[in-house]
Amino acid sequence: MNLRIIAHVLGWVINIEAVCMLLPLICAICYNEPVKWVFVLCILICLLIGIPLTKTGKKNRSMFAKEGFVIVALSWIVLSIFGALPFVLSGSIPNFIDALFETASGFTTTGASILTDVEILPKSILFWRSFTHWIGGMGVIVFLVAILPLSGGNNFHMIKAESPGHSVSKLVPRVRTTAKILYGIYLLMTLIEMLLLLLGGLDIFEASTLAFGTAGTGGFAIKNSGLADYSSYIQVVITIFMILFGIDFTFYYLILMKKVKSAFKLEEVWVYFGIILASISLIFFNVREMFPSAPDALKHTAFQVGSIITTTGYGTTDFDLWPQFSKTIIVLLMFCGACAGSTGGGMKVSRIMILFKSIVKEIKILTHPKSEIKVRFNSRVLEHETLRGINVYFVAYMFIFVAVLLIISLDNYDFTTNFTAVTATLSNIGPGLSRVGPTCNFSFFSPLSKVVLTLAMIIGRLEIFPILVLFSRNTWKK
Amino acid sequence: MNLRIIAHVLGWVINIEAVCMLLPLICAICYNEPVKWVFVLCILICLLIGIPLTKTGKKNRSMFAKEGFVIVALSWIVLSIFGALPFVLSGSIPNFIDALFETASGFTTTGASILTDVEILPKSILFWRSFTHWIGGMGVIVFLVAILPLSGGNNFHMIKAESPGHSVSKLVPRVRTTAKILYGIYLLMTLIEMLLLLLGGLDIFEASTLAFGTAGTGGFAIKNSGLADYSSYIQVVITIFMILFGIDFTFYYLILMKKVKSAFKLEEVWVYFGIILASISLIFFNVREMFPSAPDALKHTAFQVGSIITTTGYGTTDFDLWPQFSKTIIVLLMFCGACAGSTGGGMKVSRIMILFKSIVKEIKILTHPKSEIKVRFNSRVLEHETLRGINVYFVAYMFIFVAVLLIISLDNYDFTTNFTAVTATLSNIGPGLSRVGPTCNFSFFSPLSKVVLTLAMIIGRLEIFPILVLFSRNTWKK
Repeated sequence: MNLRIIAHVLGWVINIEAVCMLLPLICAICYNEPVKWVFVLCILICLLIGIPLTKTGKKNRSMFAKEGFVIVALSWIVLSIFGALPFVLSGSIPNFIDALFETASGFTTTGASILTDVEILPKSILFWRSFTHWIGGMGVIVFLVAILPLSGGNNFHMIKAESPGHSVSKLVPRVRTTAKILYGIYLLMTLIEMLLLLLGGLDIFEASTLAFGTAGTGGFAIKNSGLADYSSYIQVVITIFMILFGIDFTFYYLILMKKVKSAFKLEEVWVYFGIILASISLIFFNVREMFPSAPDALKHTAFQVGSIITTTGYGTTDFDLWPQFSKTIIVLLMFCGACAGSTGGGMKVSRIMILFKSIVKEIKILTHPKSEIKVRFNSRVLEHETLRGINVYFVAYMFIFVAVLLIISLDNYDFTTNFTAVTATLSNIGPGLSRVGPTCNFSFFSPLSKVVLTLAMIIGRLEIFPILVLFSRNTWKK
Repeated sequence: MNLRIIAHVLGWVINIEAVCMLLPLICAICYNEPVKWVFVLCILICLLIGIPLTKTGKKNRSMFAKEGFVIVALSWIVLSIFGALPFVLSGSIPNFIDALFETASGFTTTGASILTDVEILPKSILFWRSFTHWIGGMGVIVFLVAILPLSGGNNFHMIKAESPGHSVSKLVPRVRTTAKILYGIYLLMTLIEMLLLLLGGLDIFEASTLAFGTAGTGGFAIKNSGLADYSSYIQVVITIFMILFGIDFTFYYLILMKKVKSAFKLEEVWVYFGIILASISLIFFNVREMFPSAPDALKHTAFQVGSIITTTGYGTTDFDLWPQFSKTIIVLLMFCGACAGSTGGGMKVSRIMILFKSIVKEIKILTHPKSEIKVRFNSRVLEHETLRGINVYFVAYMFIFVAVLLIISLDNYDFTTNFTAVTATLSNIGPGLSRVGPTCNFSFFSPLSKVVLTLAMIIGRLEIFPILVLFSRNTWKK
């Protein structure tokens, strides 16, 4: 294990976090909030620790798969710890465990909160809170690779460990260029959304925080009522952008390269829209009578389906009051999640598709034992390793789900609360049902549960294996 | 598809069911219940349909894997339909869907009931209800193979499709002899339990019905209070036998063959006892204060853990009142289930073990990509096909779980009820939590939900694939 390269990259992660804090600092200066000094202090702390760390690992830059996993896992933990400082030092969230939960929830784009009243917080703190969504959405390692001249080919190990989905689409052969393209698309789409929100009458603070939450599929709101009090225009714009950010970014790259035909051949995108349309239709008929008019019902249904399948978690209405059928669809969408290669969480549509195809394959093999049957995805035969990886991911997801569920059940809240709290964190959604429903928050959990749920959010965002590798004895054996 | 051989075997299944109904008929005669004529009528109906069917398929007895699956799937459906006749015709359960639910619950050894008052039913009807557990426990096809001179090697397809667990242990090279040995052990253990229950002061009716429920890991009780009102002696005897019937029958065979060393080398049995001990300890400390004394708490805890992990479902206490931590353990035990090759349901301990091992393997591969790592079970390397089968089973289990959950959510009961109702049926347990808790029943569900849950019980008992094969278009294509 090359500890020096790990320290080196972690140093850069902390430095980048310091740079990221400049934005809320500017916000604090604009609104002349005293909290600006907190940000200055936090930036200094980060740089004081980050810069010396970057000096290590100059001699030996060799990095293998296990270093990649460890770096990514530690990066996200370190990111959450340092990111929590502004909350703690400003007194906004005095308790460190709470602040860690909130920050990890931000970076992992979960959007689950322990805050009971967000409107009393300084604007710059709210800005930082929402900005963590944007940083975490595309991933900090992807950003690092895009801007830092780290040793070429090895970066791919880190990108692979951080990126969601069963296969990392190297858009172009060079990893660094791929990372730049991804961030370019991400930034552009965020700016377009901000512009549309500004046109809807929001100020720059509101427009940017809401856009950060949409782009990263995060879900932190800046009002206690969530997104319920915004105009229909704003709600519709956000619905559309949530769904757009849940699409595989390869789709946009292909469109940009004018390979429209190839773009529309991506199986996953079709199924993703199919699931969205089916869910909206089923829920619409189920909840129609709860709203004054059909367009109103449709708007809220579309918003909620878009919000949950992309694992954003914004809310315009309290879906915990919906009939059980609609709530069950919502819970299933939480597990499903958005497309691989998007900023969304969950298991990803492509994985669910491939798992489904593997059942069909098994039935064919059982009835025709001697035939050779392969699983295809996007017209290509899937390799054995890919299938195995997806299967193991699914199993590991369920095992971790069960472990987290068992630990938080010690707090003795009801089954629905516990079950959906685990789903909402492990799939990076935000709200669940019952006590963690859209109008509630996670503040009532015990410190132990909060720590475990924080870990669940990071495990979910990194798709399990980096954290398992980090804690595996095997990794640290000489 | 050789339809004639399918009809032939189904004919025998119906004939055997007629023979099985002789036992409740004798019971009705002993207690001089008017319902005896119902049993006579049912036996006549079965024979009238069964005997002509057995005359088919004399020319061509070729049977391939797909015929094996279809026969097994149809057998269990046919068994449930004809088995429901005594309930309907006697007026005990006038509604056919309810009767079908109850019968399928019996044969699949689930033990979920739609009856609100079992004590008003004739004794012979209760006897039939419990006897279906015993028939279903070891499997009707296994019985058929044991007694019928069907064409040799092909029988194995059927045995494989019916037997629980990831691999069918052919104890001896001849399938027929294996089936006979299994039934021999099953019968012997049931008789020993009956004897011990008789010694505890129960009459022959009580002793036999309770032993049937234990042996098949079913769970139908003959009192409205379940097993709460029996003496501690009876409760302890049943606890022990439930756990014994959850062990892989290979274990007993090896013991009988005096291969004690090999018997104790079965990994799964150790882990099974490990899970039982761990669960009892954790729940005991969690519920200790709810009972007047520690031995009392221990007795109920051990009973409930044994009842749930073996998927029996008997109850001496209402675990729905336990703290959430204990309830969560109970729910997890429902998914786990007993050993493969036992009469218990659920996913089986061996599958969970192998899935866990595959996660460990994946971590090793991720950190050391070039190394060759194999999953071992009982000191043998598992073949790729076995691993794939287990993975696909797990995925299919979850997909079917989700589908059933969604359909029954239309009834608009709470999430905990729905979730545990699906678990309790798909894993063949019986009771769940909330509205389907140990003191409740399944009578309130809509007819649609009852049909779907009935199907879930059969899907669970046959471990999914026979039913999927039956309904697959691929199977019926020429």
